[in-house]
Amino acid sequence: MLVKDIGEFGLIGRIAQLLPSRPADVVVGIGDDVAVLKTSGPDYLLATCDKQAEGVHFKLGAISAHQLGRRAVAINVSDVAAMGGYPLWMLVSLAITETTRTAFIDELYRGMVEQAGLAGASIVGGNLSRADSGISIDITLLGHIAPRHLVLRSGARVGDAILVTGFPGESRAGFEMVLNPQIRVSESAGRRVMERHFTPQPRLREGQLIAESGLVHAMVDVSDGLMADLGHICEASRAGAIVETGRVPVSEAVSEVAYSINTNEAPVRALDWVLAGGEDYELLFTASFEDVPRIQKMLLNESGLKCTQIGRVTAEAGTLRLSMPDGTETSLPPGRRGWEHFG
Amino acid sequence: MLVKDIGEFGLIGRIAQLLPSRPADVVVGIGDDVAVLKTSGPDYLLATCDKQAEGVHFKLGAISAHQLGRRAVAINVSDVAAMGGYPLWMLVSLAITETTRTAFIDELYRGMVEQAGLAGASIVGGNLSRADSGISIDITLLGHIAPRHLVLRSGARVGDAILVTGFPGESRAGFEMVLNPQIRVSESAGRRVMERHFTPQPRLREGQLIAESGLVHAMVDVSDGLMADLGHICEASRAGAIVETGRVPVSEAVSEVAYSINTNEAPVRALDWVLAGGEDYELLFTASFEDVPRIQKMLLNESGLKCTQIGRVTAEAGTLRLSMPDGTETSLPPGRRGWEHFG
Repeated sequence: MLVKDIGEFGLIGRIAQLLPSRPADVVVGIGDDVAVLKTSGPDYLLATCDKQAEGVHFKLGAISAHQLGRRAVAINVSDVAAMGGYPLWMLVSLAITETTRTAFIDELYRGMVEQAGLAGASIVGGNLSRADSGISIDITLLGHIAPRHLVLRSGARVGDAILVTGFPGESRAGFEMVLNPQIRVSESAGRRVMERHFTPQPRLREGQLIAESGLVHAMVDVSDGLMADLGHICEASRAGAIVETGRVPVSEAVSEVAYSINTNEAPVRALDWVLAGGEDYELLFTASFEDVPRIQKMLLNESGLKCTQIGRVTAEAGTLRLSMPDGTETSLPPGRRGWEHFG
Repeated sequence: MLVKDIGEFGLIGRIAQLLPSRPADVVVGIGDDVAVLKTSGPDYLLATCDKQAEGVHFKLGAISAHQLGRRAVAINVSDVAAMGGYPLWMLVSLAITETTRTAFIDELYRGMVEQAGLAGASIVGGNLSRADSGISIDITLLGHIAPRHLVLRSGARVGDAILVTGFPGESRAGFEMVLNPQIRVSESAGRRVMERHFTPQPRLREGQLIAESGLVHAMVDVSDGLMADLGHICEASRAGAIVETGRVPVSEAVSEVAYSINTNEAPVRALDWVLAGGEDYELLFTASFEDVPRIQKMLLNESGLKCTQIGRVTAEAGTLRLSMPDGTETSLPPGRRGWEHFG
């Protein structure tokens, strides 16, 4: 049997089976984006790692070294943000070829330092190794959180409202413009979606505000795609979800890029980018319906960020449904929800 | 300027220049194998990462998946051992191709779990990504240590004795047998050097005993090569060193492999493997001459491991010298001490 036969999440399940049972000092172990660990102090330690590999996650020439450095850090910060945590330290494992330019490495580190600085984290070590082909940057980010503020993906309750910050889909629209340079949109829309694709900004302060409000039951960041990551919440919480497509926030920039490709298919295409695009690094979370206005107001006041209620948590464990404005419904089986690395 | 023009350690220095000054919660930052970090508890947190990449660090077919898993963990454990620390948690960032066999991954994880278990550590998370070519395993290991027991590479004092555990060079002899399968040695010597090459055993308990004795001033593990790693101690301690080649421990297995290649050159070849071979994962440390017998006896009694006094720390900062039995001396400039990844 090959990796592609079981896919990424099948493989993670298989690996989890091979591990001994979870030790007492591990609050959250394998299967989540971030490990949550009990130390000798009052805070939990958070540990996550994420990689950017040439040819798989980025193409040299399409992204600058500085952007790549920012991006590699941002995707890790986003994982800590989704628990409400505070980043502290980073290890950078960098694989480069003998003919990588030192100027490239300078710019890469400048980008990493800049993005780490925004998150209050510092680079404290790492590893340099030779790559035969293709640069890769593997970052481990450590952070901390007070146990009472920790929000996991597993806490969603049946009847909860589902909310998402900002405008998912913009990163996917930016990627579309990279794939099809002939697309013509307004300068502001083009700049916005490209920025969101190349240098996504993790919702760190927002994650902390959401977690510290005490009003939120489950949270993830949208990296695999909104529906795929909602699936992760549902799986961990043994619940289901229904999303009303009419409520899903589609930004003007996403619409503009979608319309510039083809007018007839634009609404469907835009919705697809929002629901399945991935790499948005927005926050997706659940809370009681009665608390939704308070959360929305708090986020708007404290960070200027809009968040939208897009659906609700249901009792049908593992079932994700889309409800259309005309009243019809579609069920989304796993594998049709977003992005997997294999298969 | 290219990476190969400045080499690995030149590049590390260059990166260190790009980083902001070390924050107050970072006891040891970039430039060491392990970061030492102040948490909210009484213990320091230790964090290190090391990578094994196909084609660079290993060849599929030459090493089994189980051996590879053990090795990838062992080299990280060794870094924590060299500070006297206790491993706790591991993140595994695994890059695989779509056609990697799941049986390979099973065996890889079994090897990692086995070696982690020996070190008291557990796998708590990680990342799976697709590789276009070549598997890689990037492990981050977290551990802890009581601040009073921490031993750094920077503590060597002029006049200290230099000691090394066990028999460095055996891993290099094993690699020689991989390169030249026609080499014929006794079964016991062959098995020993191959084991030391494919599944090196970090000196974890010994590192803890050495650190907790309170008698040792500086310590590293021998990964780049005995003289290269001694150079790291000297650089960090702003000291020099002289090694007496007549005192350097050459195991029977190393001798046997060296003699099987060529009788005349065997003693020189064996000494070269011991001094510059690398990947031994023995411990190299310094202590007052008067404490050497106590340390040797303690290690022998508590763990059955021999350690040998091979030289002394001098005041000539940055200068490494070899002293031959005939009284002649050779100076070893940086770049002639062992293994670097580039240049």
